[in-house]
Parts: sequence; C-alpha cells; structure tokens
Amino acid sequence: MTEVAATELETSLAGFAANLALDDVPTVVVHEAKRSILNVLATAFAGCREPAIDKTLKAMTPLSAGGSASLFGREEQCDPSLAAFVNAMAANIFDYDDNHSETIIHPAAPLAPALFAFAETERRAGADLLRAFIIGGEIECRIGLGVSPYHYARGWHITSTCGIFGAASGVGALLGLTERQFVDAMANAAALSAGLVENLGTMAKSLSVGGAARHGMLSAILAADDFTGSSTPLSGERGFLNVFGEAPDMARIVAGLGEDWEIGKNTYKPYPVGVVLNPVIDACLELAGRPDVELGAIKSIRLTGHPLLRQRTDRPDVATGREAQVSAQHAVAIVLRRRAAGLDEFDDAAVAETLAAGRPTVEFVDDATMHIAEAKLSAFAADGTEHEVTIDAASGSPDNPLSDSDLEAKLTSLAERSGFSRPLAPLIDAIWRLDELDDAAQVPRLAREQRRA
Amino acid sequence: MTEVAATELETSLAGFAANLALDDVPTVVVHEAKRSILNVLATAFAGCREPAIDKTLKAMTPLSAGGSASLFGREEQCDPSLAAFVNAMAANIFDYDDNHSETIIHPAAPLAPALFAFAETERRAGADLLRAFIIGGEIECRIGLGVSPYHYARGWHITSTCGIFGAASGVGALLGLTERQFVDAMANAAALSAGLVENLGTMAKSLSVGGAARHGMLSAILAADDFTGSSTPLSGERGFLNVFGEAPDMARIVAGLGEDWEIGKNTYKPYPVGVVLNPVIDACLELAGRPDVELGAIKSIRLTGHPLLRQRTDRPDVATGREAQVSAQHAVAIVLRRRAAGLDEFDDAAVAETLAAGRPTVEFVDDATMHIAEAKLSAFAADGTEHEVTIDAASGSPDNPLSDSDLEAKLTSLAERSGFSRPLAPLIDAIWRLDELDDAAQVPRLAREQRRA
Repeated sequence: MTEVAATELETSLAGFAANLALDDVPTVVVHEAKRSILNVLATAFAGCREPAIDKTLKAMTPLSAGGSASLFGREEQCDPSLAAFVNAMAANIFDYDDNHSETIIHPAAPLAPALFAFAETERRAGADLLRAFIIGGEIECRIGLGVSPYHYARGWHITSTCGIFGAASGVGALLGLTERQFVDAMANAAALSAGLVENLGTMAKSLSVGGAARHGMLSAILAADDFTGSSTPLSGERGFLNVFGEAPDMARIVAGLGEDWEIGKNTYKPYPVGVVLNPVIDACLELAGRPDVELGAIKSIRLTGHPLLRQRTDRPDVATGREAQVSAQHAVAIVLRRRAAGLDEFDDAAVAETLAAGRPTVEFVDDATMHIAEAKLSAFAADGTEHEVTIDAASGSPDNPLSDSDLEAKLTSLAERSGFSRPLAPLIDAIWRLDELDDAAQVPRLAREQRRA
Repeated sequence: MTEVAATELETSLAGFAANLALDDVPTVVVHEAKRSILNVLATAFAGCREPAIDKTLKAMTPLSAGGSASLFGREEQCDPSLAAFVNAMAANIFDYDDNHSETIIHPAAPLAPALFAFAETERRAGADLLRAFIIGGEIECRIGLGVSPYHYARGWHITSTCGIFGAASGVGALLGLTERQFVDAMANAAALSAGLVENLGTMAKSLSVGGAARHGMLSAILAADDFTGSSTPLSGERGFLNVFGEAPDMARIVAGLGEDWEIGKNTYKPYPVGVVLNPVIDACLELAGRPDVELGAIKSIRLTGHPLLRQRTDRPDVATGREAQVSAQHAVAIVLRRRAAGLDEFDDAAVAETLAAGRPTVEFVDDATMHIAEAKLSAFAADGTEHEVTIDAASGSPDNPLSDSDLEAKLTSLAERSGFSRPLAPLIDAIWRLDELDDAAQVPRLAREQRRA
C-alpha cells in the first residue's frame, strides 16, 4: 500500500468537494461534463422501456412516496430516490453509456440521475449541478483508480461499487456538506457499496447500478443531518480500499486532484456493448465494407487484444440480448451478417438469428501490451482464405472520440427508437446551456415523456 | 475451492427453501427460532430510540409510501421496506442481538424485521413465518460458513453481507417462490450485498444491516415477478463466494442441509457488546465479586484469548458509547468500576467516566487454540498483586446459554428502559405461540407503541 497518513485521503477528497469552484475547472472539462450528461440521457432513453425497468417500477412504486421527479423517457413521476434508482438502471442497462477508460467505470449512470432527481425536489442552478457532477465524477473515478485493475478483475461491478461514492459526493455538493459531512457521506456510501460482475448480462446487474444512485443520494442526505460514520471509510485497515482492493494505490487517488481531470477523460460508446468489444465491431464493420470479402464464407475468427477482451467476452453460447452485449461470438456473427451494430443487433431476436445460423468459432490471443481500444481481427474462410483488420483506436476511444453532433445523433436516434414523443432540440439545447440555467430541473423535465390525454 | 458442480450449490439451497416443511424441523430448532425472535424484539426495543434511528426516519420517511407496517417500540407506521430497514437497524445497533457462534453472524436482525414487515402487508400464518425464519436463517448462516473465517477478517460486516441472503430467502419463502425464483432472489441479493467492518462503532454500520433487510425483501419481491439474475450468483467464478471469500468451502454450505440446523445453534447476548468481549466481562464481574480484590488498585490487565478478541476490541481511546461496545479497554474499566454491564455501561456518559478516570492498560495475548467464548484475565495492581480469572464458556455461549426466562427478562428490561408503554406479556406469549397464530402480524402489532392522545 502506498503510504498516506490516516484520514489524509478522506480529508483531501472532502476538501476538494467542499471547496471546488466551477470557475476553476477548465472549460474543456466543463464541456466534457455536458457531453457526459447528454450521453447518459441518450442511453436512458434506450433502456427506459426494458422489462427490468417495468418490473422495478411495479415492485418499488407501492413502497415509495409519490413525487414530481422525472423518469427519463417515461410518463411516471415519483420520489427522487426511486427516480435516481430507475434512471440509473435505464442509463446503464445496455452498457451503452459512457466509459472512463482506465477504470472501465461508467461514470454518469449512478451520478447524473441522483443529481437531477435531487434538483427536481430542491431547486438548484444548472451551474451547481454541473459542479456537483464534476465533483462526483472525479471522486468515483479516482477511487476506482485506487483499486484498479484488481477490483474489476476480482469480480466487482466497478460502476456500482465506485459509482455510489460519486452519487454521495455529488448530492453532497448540492446539499453544501461540510468537509466532515463529506467524509460521513463517504462512510455511509462505503456501508452500502455493492455489485458483482457475475450478474452481467442479467436484470440483476442493474440493481447495483440503481442502488449506487439511490443509496449514494441517501448517504449524502443522512450526512447532511450528521449521521456519522468512520473517519477512515476509504483508507482504514478495513475500509473500502483494503477490502474491495488489494494493495490499493492511495496516492494515485489524490494525485493531481483539481488539476488533472478524470471526468475530462470520459468516452462514449458508438455500440451498445461492453467497451472491450468496440474495436472488434469496428474491425467487423471494416471487413464488411471490403468488396473482396465474402462474409458468409467466414468460419472462424482470431481476436488479438488486451486480456480483458477474452476475460469479459468469451461467451460462445449466449441466448439473450443482454448477454450478447458481452459476447464476442455473437458480436462478430451479427455484424458480419447485418453490417450494423445498433441496439437491434443485440436484442433477443438477433441472438436467436446468430444461434440458428451458427456463430463463427472465436479464438482469443491475449496481448497485455495492447490497449483495450486496440484489436487485431483475423478472419478465416473454409477454403483457407484469410483477412486481417487492425484497429489502433476504436471509435469512441480517447484517440477517436465521438463528436458533439455524433452524441446529439445518438440521443435523437435512441429517443426516437423508444417512441419518445417530445421534440429533442430543447433538451439538447438545455444540456449545452446547463451552466446558464437558473433551474437545473429543466433538463429532466424536458426528458420526461408528456402525459397523454 | 471445494469442487461443487456449477449451479449445484444454488439448486440445493433453492430446493431446500422451496420444499422445507415445518413438520420436518426438529421441535428444539423451532423453539430456538422463537427464542431468536424474542431476542431480536428485545434488542430492537433497546435500539429503537437511538439518534441513528431518528435520523434515518427523518431522511427516509419523505421518500417512502405510507403504510401499516410497525416499527418495534415506536408509534410510527410505514411501508414494509422502511419498517424492515429501521427495525433491522434498531435490533443490531448495540450489537446486543443474537449470534451464530461459528460465523459471528447476527442472524435475526436482517431477517425477522423483513418477515414481520412483509406479514403486515400480506397476511401469513405464524407457522409460515417461523418456516421462513428457519429457511432464511439456515441460508444466511450456511453462506457465512462458506466464506468464514476469511470474510469477516478481511473486513466484511458478515451480518449484513450474508444477512441479505437470509432476508431474500425468508421473504421468498413467504412469497412461495419457485426453485428458479429462489436462485433469482439470491442473484438479486448478491447484487446488493454490502457492509464494512470499518464502520463498526458508528451510525454508518447500521445502514448495511438495514439494507440487508430492505434489499433482501426487494430481491425476493422482484424474483417473484421473474426479475432474473445469474444462475450462479454464489458459486460462479465472479459470484458472491469467490469475490467476498477466498477459497470458499462450497461443500460446507450444503453439508447436512435440512438435517444439521445452524439456526438451532443460535446464541444470545447477556451484554450489549461485541460477542468476543463476553468472557472478558464475565471475568470482570467475577473479579468484582471477589472480596479480596481491591478494584481501584488495578492498573493493568492481560487478556489471553482468541486472536479475534485483540483484532476486534483493542481500542484504548474510544470516545463514544457505540465505539465502546467493541473496546476491551472501556469494558474492563467500566465493569470494574460499576460491577455491572448493561446498556448504561456502554453509553456516552459511561465512556466519559472511564476516559476521565483512566482506563487500565490492556495487554492482549493471542491464543488461536482458544474458542471465542473463552478468556483468561490477569489483573495487576500497582503493588504487584496479581489476580487471575479463567472463563471456559462465557454466559450466552453454546455451553452456557441464556434460559427462556433470561430472554423474557431481557425483553422486559429493554422495553421498559426505552419507555415502552404497553404490557409485554401478550407479546411474549404470542412469540412462544407463533406456530399457532393465524396471523403472524400479531407479533409486530404487539411490539408497536400505541398512539397516544
């Protein structure tokens, strides 16, 4: 363990959260926060009509207070903690949301829904919400850095386990917590941090993401009333970092805090799959565009990439759309058949199609020197013909980012696909102008489906 | 890892939960379940007026539906998920609740509140509730056995992390889940399992205990609507056992299932402290009763015991009542001063008293061959006089259990201490006759404070 004096880690993070001024954040980072928010609304539109969301609302609405918080893309309104839960689930359900490359955290899903739901019950300026988003994003990503790569490899769903600290810190910022209260908020969040990779590809995965938003919000609300916890919830001998990590790098968590911005490194997905599959899909699309390649003849594929590519996506027998998002075998099969990689290529019908038609055999070659945005694909036909495609920087990766208009198009297409009936230009405009809005709640209200007669 | 075929563990537990008949449970085990329930109500009375409970109700009531579920010892009524949360917090807040010795799980706190809250919203016979309690208790304790002793030593609050499986399975039993749905309930619970030892001695500890009850209940309700998860949430490569455990003993979890009853091994605390301190307090009380010992002259103490005694209770500088429950230094000091070890000996005033008066120096000697119910205490006076007390089986331990009337007296005294105004005989009677009651909700209703004019 890197030496950091007891409580120094917590007081550094709390001091950052209590004292950050939005004016001190570089413009490009503020803009990246807006891009993150735009993207998380896009992916919430994508997920908001899934059965897991319907079932969650059916189970939890009778247990919840009424309220005016919005569910993105839906008509129902509810109390802010249920809105945070459900919107976070929806935003991440397809793993189509943003990605902090170094940790593979999806920073916005557990964070933005908690902030917007809170801002719908207590009025906050858009600039305050942006500041809270940046604080929460920095803290969740930095805690993730401190336990990576062990943490995710062990089986922790890092978006959930670290996301709760983002939600707690972000809502804490909206509540104006003192430094001591920020530490309490982190202690409360540490008590409720949860989520297992084992549930990836199932509805249960979404519970921990929703829980991160909901329980992070609760952690901050309790801290504001001096509901106290350990003064070393992260750095203590049995604190989050030592229990959820192995030889955690505490110095890394605070290195460059307030100067080097993790949320500024956020990336966005062009395809609704586990991020490690992006270069594979890029390669398949490139292959499919080559006039000399007979796609139907391809019988096997060799994928060379970062070991996580194999560890996360070697799933030859997936049978549901959700599982297929982390299956290299299905991804390769469907993209080579349809020359497309949208949500419709990762639903149950698409999975049935590749199951029936047969999926190419996939051989994985680990290369730990490669970045997860890189991959080399070799395709072999039955007659021995070989084609090779190398992707150096997958679309959506830091070296090949989606543009602002790409993100707008993503939001528009996903909202339309979910049947959203309201015009999208006012919502997109409100996000780009978030720091000028008197009331941050304009954003979730514009993302709410209107009640129909 | 002990070899167990994939999903065999989950299907064994689910088959047990789906098919157990109360008639197949030995009478002595059914009686132990009633004793557990009596004790958990006692400790909920003890904790129900603590500031952590008031703050939780203040924060969560505005987010929760109204409802008729009871808060033990209090007037408020609420939705069942909030009642489960708050009652579980209250029951465990002083660590005065029951103890499954081999795992150090407090089985009833996360379990019974979820069952009673559910039974107040959907009528269930007392026998069904007892059956659900036994199912949940077996499953939480057995999962705990599979990851012990690594799990708690690593820093997991095992009552919370394993208790959620008890609540999920128990509420699942009340819901009549199918075997497949029981596996889903465990997957949902695995997604939300949380709790860190680092927060012991603070309010934040209680959040994970409350969460275990509340989120376990939610896990089962969702599973009843076919909200699905991993088919290997426990045994999978990145399932609960491998992520929260190290070389988990899967065979141990199902060995003797339905024949050897873990809940039948439940024990109850005579003192409101971490269970490892029980023999130390017994020793101090015995020392205080010896006519030849001048208590005021004792300057230092040597405690020989299981290593957990040192690991959990070597806390010389505690400053609050809650921290003092796991401080050997305070425990020794206050018991030698007051010759008593009730809740009043572990509140903030008592801590201030030992801080001001000075606490004896405590030296710990680890002896891994000793059971946690054993301890040897050597007391040294300034003049070199030495006294020694050896405790072979602490009161409340399996070899020296509290009697039924001890438990009744514990409930009576804790209810009276909290100002509870209703007669206690009907409540005690209803618990002993639980298997005869048409409506299990009689118990929580009798434990509810009546509304005053």
